[in-house]
Amino acid sequence: MSEATAISPPVSRLERIVEDERFRRTILFLIVINAVLLGFETSRTLSPGTMDSIMFANKAILGVFVVELILRISAYRLDFFRDGWNLFDFAIITVALIAPSGAFQVVRALRILRAFRLVSTVTSLRRVVEGLLGAIPGIASVLFLLVLVLYIAGVMSTILFRDVAPENFGHLGISLFSLFQIMTLEGWAEIATGVMAEYEWAWIFFIGYILVATFLVLNLVIGVVVSSIQSRIESESAINMAAETQLVMKELAEIREDIRLLREESRSRRN
Amino acid sequence: MSEATAISPPVSRLERIVEDERFRRTILFLIVINAVLLGFETSRTLSPGTMDSIMFANKAILGVFVVELILRISAYRLDFFRDGWNLFDFAIITVALIAPSGAFQVVRALRILRAFRLVSTVTSLRRVVEGLLGAIPGIASVLFLLVLVLYIAGVMSTILFRDVAPENFGHLGISLFSLFQIMTLEGWAEIATGVMAEYEWAWIFFIGYILVATFLVLNLVIGVVVSSIQSRIESESAINMAAETQLVMKELAEIREDIRLLREESRSRRN
Amino acid sequence: MSEATAISPPVSRLERIVEDERFRRTILFLIVINAVLLGFETSRTLSPGTMDSIMFANKAILGVFVVELILRISAYRLDFFRDGWNLFDFAIITVALIAPSGAFQVVRALRILRAFRLVSTVTSLRRVVEGLLGAIPGIASVLFLLVLVLYIAGVMSTILFRDVAPENFGHLGISLFSLFQIMTLEGWAEIATGVMAEYEWAWIFFIGYILVATFLVLNLVIGVVVSSIQSRIESESAINMAAETQLVMKELAEIREDIRLLREESRSRRN
Amino acid sequence: MSEATAISPPVSRLERIVEDERFRRTILFLIVINAVLLGFETSRTLSPGTMDSIMFANKAILGVFVVELILRISAYRLDFFRDGWNLFDFAIITVALIAPSGAFQVVRALRILRAFRLVSTVTSLRRVVEGLLGAIPGIASVLFLLVLVLYIAGVMSTILFRDVAPENFGHLGISLFSLFQIMTLEGWAEIATGVMAEYEWAWIFFIGYILVATFLVLNLVIGVVVSSIQSRIESESAINMAAETQLVMKELAEIREDIRLLREESRSRRN
Repeated sequence: MSEATAISPPVSRLERIVEDERFRRTILFLIVINAVLLGFETSRTLSPGTMDSIMFANKAILGVFVVELILRISAYRLDFFRDGWNLFDFAIITVALIAPSGAFQVVRALRILRAFRLVSTVTSLRRVVEGLLGAIPGIASVLFLLVLVLYIAGVMSTILFRDVAPENFGHLGISLFSLFQIMTLEGWAEIATGVMAEYEWAWIFFIGYILVATFLVLNLVIGVVVSSIQSRIESESAINMAAETQLVMKELAEIREDIRLLREESRSRRN
Repeated sequence: MSEATAISPPVSRLERIVEDERFRRTILFLIVINAVLLGFETSRTLSPGTMDSIMFANKAILGVFVVELILRISAYRLDFFRDGWNLFDFAIITVALIAPSGAFQVVRALRILRAFRLVSTVTSLRRVVEGLLGAIPGIASVLFLLVLVLYIAGVMSTILFRDVAPENFGHLGISLFSLFQIMTLEGWAEIATGVMAEYEWAWIFFIGYILVATFLVLNLVIGVVVSSIQSRIESESAINMAAETQLVMKELAEIREDIRLLREESRSRRN
Repeated sequence: MSEATAISPPVSRLERIVEDERFRRTILFLIVINAVLLGFETSRTLSPGTMDSIMFANKAILGVFVVELILRISAYRLDFFRDGWNLFDFAIITVALIAPSGAFQVVRALRILRAFRLVSTVTSLRRVVEGLLGAIPGIASVLFLLVLVLYIAGVMSTILFRDVAPENFGHLGISLFSLFQIMTLEGWAEIATGVMAEYEWAWIFFIGYILVATFLVLNLVIGVVVSSIQSRIESESAINMAAETQLVMKELAEIREDIRLLREESRSRRN
Repeated sequence: MSEATAISPPVSRLERIVEDERFRRTILFLIVINAVLLGFETSRTLSPGTMDSIMFANKAILGVFVVELILRISAYRLDFFRDGWNLFDFAIITVALIAPSGAFQVVRALRILRAFRLVSTVTSLRRVVEGLLGAIPGIASVLFLLVLVLYIAGVMSTILFRDVAPENFGHLGISLFSLFQIMTLEGWAEIATGVMAEYEWAWIFFIGYILVATFLVLNLVIGVVVSSIQSRIESESAINMAAETQLVMKELAEIREDIRLLREESRSRRN
C-alpha cells in the first residue's frame, strides 16, 4: 500500500481513509474478534440464542471486511492487485463470501482462514512471513531432490511391497503417504518390520531410504539456517568491518594530506 | 542484590549478614537437602518414623527459608521487590507456606518448586537462565505465527473432523492438544489415518499442517540459534578484528610521526 | 563432458551432437516422461490396452537412452569413463537393460532408478548432489565412531537381552536393526520397557546408548552444517573482506606514489 | 605416549618397541579381529568346533593385549598412568581379564568394550573423541538445569499421578524414566492422555514440561554447535584475516622505508 501511495503523490480522500491508523486498528480489532467468535462457534454447549448472536456478529464483521476491501480497491484501483498481500486479502474475503452459501463443512471450515488477515494487516508480521518465504528459493533444488527421491522410492515400494503390505504400499498414493511418514521417523519401524516379516532384505530399502531422506531434510534445514544467518549476522559484521575500515581510511587520508603539505612546503621553498 | 548495595553505600548490619558468603552457602546447602528430602518423601517403602523425621526436617528448613526471606526484605526493604529473582524467591516461599495447609496433592506437589531456588541463589545459573530467556523476544513474532497457525488449524479440524474422530477433534481444546501432538510428530500418522479412513482428502490437511508447523518450529529454533551465536561468536570476532585494526593503526601512527619529523627537518633546514 | 572437450579441442561431429542443447533437452524430456509412465505402470485400474501402450513407450524410451549412451561413448571413448556421472548413467542404463529379462519384482522395481538420470543430466542438480556428497569426508570419522558404537552396543545387547526379548535382540542382525530404531528415537521406550520388565537395570544400557548415539548424530549434523556454512558464508565474507582490503591497498598505493613524486621533486631540485 | 618420550629423551629399548609403527599396527589389527570374533561368538548357528576356535583365538588375543599393556607400563612406568587414554586401555583390559571368571552374561557382554581400544589406538579417532568431549564443559550449566527440571518434574509427577498411572509414575525412578521418554517426544501423547483421562488439567503439566525440556535440549545442542563452530570456522577466518592484514602491513612497511629513504636523501643533501 505504501508503495502505491509513493507512486501516486496526490493522495485521494479514499486513500487517506484506508491508510488512516484508526481505520486499520478497527479492522485489526474486528479480525481478532472474528477469529475468537469463529472459535466459539465450534462449541456445542452454547445456547441457540448465543449461537445466533455469534453468527450474526460474524456476518456483520464480514460485511465490514467487504466494505473495507471495496474502499481499498476503489482507492488504489489496478495498483491494488499488484501487491501480493492485497491479493491474499482479496482471496480470503472471496472464500468467506462463498463459504456460507455452501452447505459443506469443508467450505465452512475455510472461513477461519480470515484470521490470517492478521498477518497481512500487521506490518511486522508481514515482514516475518516475507522473511520465512524468502528462504524457500535457496532450498528449491534440495526440495526438488527430496521430491524426486520420494517419487522413486514410492514407485519402487509400490512394486515391491504392495502384495505384502497393501495397507501401506497398496498403490502409489498410499506408498507416498507411508514414505512421508517414514521420513518423519514416526512409526517407521512398525511399517518396516511388517514388510520384513515377508522379505528379510527389506531393511536395506527402509534404512537406505531413511538415511537418504533425513540427509536431504537436514540439508533443507541447513539451507534455511544459512539463508537466515546470512541475512541477519552478515549484515551486522559488514557494518562492524566497514566501521574499522573507515577508521583506517580516515588515518590514510590524513597521511596523504600530510604528504601533500610536505610537497607544497618543499615546492614553496624551491621557488 | 549487588545492585541494591551499589545504590545504598552505607551497608547496614543486616545487609552484611545476608550478603555474607557463609550465609549464602548455608542457604544453598539447605536448598539441596530440602530437594533431596522432598524426593525421599515420595517413597512408600520408608518407615513411618523416617517419614516423620523427613517431614520435620522439611518444615525446619522451610522455617529457615522464611527467616532468610524476612532478613533480606528487612535489609533491602522496597529495593528487594525490584529484582525479578527476589520476586521469584518470594513467590516460591509463599507457595511453600500455603502448600501444607492445603490437603490437595497439587498444592503438595508444588513444594518441590523450592528446588528452583538453586537457580536464583547460584549466580552462574542465574546468568544462564537470563541468557535463555533473552532469546525469547527475538522469536516472539514467529511464536505468535505458530500459535495463530495452531488456532486456525484447531478451528478448522474441529469443524471438519469432530464427527469422524471425536477422541482427537471432539472440541476445540482436544483439537489443539492433538495438533500440538502432531507438531511434535508423535503418533501423527495414527491420527491422520484414522480420519483418512472416512475422508480420503484429509492427508492434504495433515501434511500441509505438518509442513507449515515444522517449518515455523524450525524458524523458532533458528531464532534461538542466531541470537545465541550472535552474542557469543560475534563478540569474539569483533575482538579479533579490533586487534588487527589496532596493529594497522599503530603502524599508521608511526608513519604519520615519520612524516611529521620529515617536515620538521625540512623546515629547520629552510630557516 | 565439458572437461573432456576442453582437453580435445578438435571437436568431432559426434561430440557436437551429444553436446547440443536440443539433444540434451530431448533426453531430459524423455527421462521425465519415462518416470511418469513408470509411475502409471504401478496402477492396477488401467485397462490392459493402456498398460500395453505404456510398456511399449517405456521400451522405446529405453531404446533412445541406449542409443544416446552409445553416441556419448563413441564421442568421448575412454574419457567417457573418467567422469563419475557418466559411470552413473552407464550403470543405470545397464540395470534397465537387464531388468525386463528378470521375472523378479526387485529387478523390475530398479527400473525407476532411471529417474535419477534427471540429476546427472541437469547441471544445477549435479552441483547440489556434489555439494551434498562433499560434506561426507568431513564427517567420516564421527560416522565411523557411530558405527563402532552401534556394533559394540549390538554385540552387548545380543548377549544380554537375546533370551528376554528375542524379537528385538535375537541375533546380531536384529539387534543392530533395533539399535538403529532406538537411535531414531522411534518406539525406543517400548523396546526398553519390554527388556526392563525382566532386567530392571537395563535402563542404564538404553539411556546410556541413547545419550551417546544422539550426541554422535548431533555431531554428524554439526559436521554437515559446518562444512556447508564454511563453503557458503565464508566465501562471501572473504569477498567482502577482500573488497575492504583492496580499498585500503589502493589508498596505500596512492600514498606510495605521492612519496615517490616527493622524492623525485626533491632530487630534481638537488640537481 | 609421545609426551612421555618428550620428557625422557634417552629412549629405552622397550619404549622403542611399543612406539614402533609395526607394533602398533599389529595391535590395531588384533583389536579389529577381536571385535569381529566377539561378534561371531553371538551366533548360535556355529558348530561347537568353530565356536571353540573363536573362543581360543579371543583368549590368545587377550593374552597379546596383556603383554602389550605390561610392555607399555614397563616402558613408561608412572608416566603411563598420567595419560587418560592409557588409563582407558588399562580399565578395558582389566575388565576383559575379570570377564571370563564371571559366569554372568553382564560381565561377558562387557568384553566387547575392548573394541573401543580402536579409538585409543588410532590417533585421529582420539582427536575426534577429545573434540567431542571438549564440548561438554561448555554445556555443563544447561545440562545441570535440565537435570534439575527433570528431578523437579519427577517429584511433582510422582506425587500427582502415582495413583492414576502407576505404570508410568509409580515411584520416583519410573517417573524419571517416563519424563526422559517424554523429553525424547517418543510416545508422550499416550502417557499424557492416560493421565488426562483422570485429571483433565494434566495437559498443563505435560505441555509445559515438553516446552521447557525441549527448549533446554535445544540450548544444549546450540552449546555443542557453537563450541564446534568456534573452534573450526573462527580459526580459519582468523587465518584469512591475518593474511589480509599482513598484506596491508607489508605495504605500510614499504611506505615507512620510502619515507626513511626520503629523510636520508633530504639529510645528505643538507650536509
